[in-house]
Amino acid sequence: MITLAVDCMGGDHGPRVTLAACRQFLDTHSDAHLLLVGQPESLKAFAHERATVVAASEVVGMDDPVEVALRRKKDSSMRVAIQQVKDGTAAAAVSAGNTGALMAIARYLLKTLDGIDRPAIATQMPNDKGRATTVLDLGANVDCSAEHLLQFAVMGAALVSVLQEDSSASVGLLNIGEEVIKGNEVIKKAGELLRAAAQSGDLNFQGNVEGNDIFKGTVDIVVCDGFVGNVALKASEGVAAMIVGGLKQEFKRNIFTKIAAIVAYPVLSALMKRMDYRRYNGAALLGLRGLVFKSHGSADALAFEQALNRAYDAARNNLLDRVRSRIAHAAPLLASSTAQPALATAAPLP
Amino acid sequence: MITLAVDCMGGDHGPRVTLAACRQFLDTHSDAHLLLVGQPESLKAFAHERATVVAASEVVGMDDPVEVALRRKKDSSMRVAIQQVKDGTAAAAVSAGNTGALMAIARYLLKTLDGIDRPAIATQMPNDKGRATTVLDLGANVDCSAEHLLQFAVMGAALVSVLQEDSSASVGLLNIGEEVIKGNEVIKKAGELLRAAAQSGDLNFQGNVEGNDIFKGTVDIVVCDGFVGNVALKASEGVAAMIVGGLKQEFKRNIFTKIAAIVAYPVLSALMKRMDYRRYNGAALLGLRGLVFKSHGSADALAFEQALNRAYDAARNNLLDRVRSRIAHAAPLLASSTAQPALATAAPLP
Repeated sequence: MITLAVDCMGGDHGPRVTLAACRQFLDTHSDAHLLLVGQPESLKAFAHERATVVAASEVVGMDDPVEVALRRKKDSSMRVAIQQVKDGTAAAAVSAGNTGALMAIARYLLKTLDGIDRPAIATQMPNDKGRATTVLDLGANVDCSAEHLLQFAVMGAALVSVLQEDSSASVGLLNIGEEVIKGNEVIKKAGELLRAAAQSGDLNFQGNVEGNDIFKGTVDIVVCDGFVGNVALKASEGVAAMIVGGLKQEFKRNIFTKIAAIVAYPVLSALMKRMDYRRYNGAALLGLRGLVFKSHGSADALAFEQALNRAYDAARNNLLDRVRSRIAHAAPLLASSTAQPALATAAPLP
Repeated sequence: MITLAVDCMGGDHGPRVTLAACRQFLDTHSDAHLLLVGQPESLKAFAHERATVVAASEVVGMDDPVEVALRRKKDSSMRVAIQQVKDGTAAAAVSAGNTGALMAIARYLLKTLDGIDRPAIATQMPNDKGRATTVLDLGANVDCSAEHLLQFAVMGAALVSVLQEDSSASVGLLNIGEEVIKGNEVIKKAGELLRAAAQSGDLNFQGNVEGNDIFKGTVDIVVCDGFVGNVALKASEGVAAMIVGGLKQEFKRNIFTKIAAIVAYPVLSALMKRMDYRRYNGAALLGLRGLVFKSHGSADALAFEQALNRAYDAARNNLLDRVRSRIAHAAPLLASSTAQPALATAAPLP
């Protein structure tokens, strides 16, 4: 039996979406048990033999500052869900709540793994090859040292080995050109560390990649600092939204284009399905002593269910042990490159 | 008469594309004169009363290191074209050659304007509002201080005031959230400087924006360091290419989808035209004592012509004087925030 703790109150839609997703998830996973964390009043309509309500009186708002979430709302559904992971009653926690708060609470309660200075957020994006490219960090760390980028690469490789069963997943370093002389000092040094990791057999490092390589599927894992990753992710979402919006506008232009829309509908919807961000929902918070997954705040039930699926797969395949053993293997490398103290982080500790 | 110097040998295709674009450009600009810079042998087929060949014996290769372009190829078409601007025989230079080399040569020959530490590359991207968002820097500077970002904002505002005749263009600072507390130390400090510039009337600063705002058209000008800008640009191109590739694939799937493609063709081609990157070709190298425009290396004749149009508009509307006067106006602000020395730059000087 795999038990997941679900923050039922998080996200833009709260229980309406999270409970619908939980029901669907339970129907398709007969060995899963869910701890539904939230205000009992909001969850009482849900009944399932493999679901248990865990009461939490407070809710972290999408706009709550990290400090408020961490210090003032000690009985929030987000925090209680993560506490279940800490206590060992759940194998993983899933929340669609505010990212900064989730990272801060997870880091505070669970602590980081030995050898990891900073947790990272990893997500998947669709690529040209019909597979997914895993990108990290996506915003947990706005300033990273070369050593942090190496740690992200090791954690990303562990994640892909578990979720895609690919133990030799290739890693690329996001840069502004393929040549090793490109980039700033941090990136150049990260390149050196990653090449050393490739030589010691810890990583299948393929060198520098550029922004477009994320979507070409040039490598399985793209490593970058959280600022760059966040901008790349949001810019990509922006372009996709603009193109989809443009398509809709053009097809609505007049009666002829509306007929064309009807004829083209099956084709367009096949494409939309392929690119559907909901299929890629569920980012992993890596580097903690416990599994936490983050759903998009605006997720609908299908998307939130996908985040539950990911947490389930990670728990069933022992992601935590895999990350631990990969880090242990790479320990000499990580130790020889003593990580510098953080300049700033999106998730400060109290 | 507006005279432009054209590096006819640059880009992936050389004279085949550049000369075709020059002919088209001359046909539509009766007060323009072109200096066609390159190997006379390659240019001899071109004859026009308002075109003059300027001989240059060497060509900067797309893969040439900056040092080679700058120190060893002193008679390259790229360098001779920029020399025309320095000598005052041309009002602007246009090249589709290697960006790093172009920036280094332009900086070496022309020098930066007073009050500007680092030139920046500014380009336009399509947005949801059917207008263009100007983004800078796109890769000239991989590490920027807050002061550099302020300079970019001032230069970007001057560019938009000339090319789009919008003297109160709004400026946004690319960040990972809208709140002022977001981002690293450089970004937070840049936010302070930009707010001060808004108070002194030097800029219409609107605050932080995120990656997707580039394509939403939230502001007219988005300011970022060259590393982030380059990744955002290339990631965006990658998503667009993936979606277009996916559309083609889906429409080719079977006989029914092929028929759908024929019906939908006018709609899809209207959309493609709207999003056509060629319409946005022609990045400005800002902050130099002379006008230089950079075309995409893979530009076809239509795209290269667009870069010529932009250089012509910039020259005719006195972009250089506008940038100078904007910088002079903002001088107290720029001076009070003494710029730090560069950690690294993509365009080192000899």
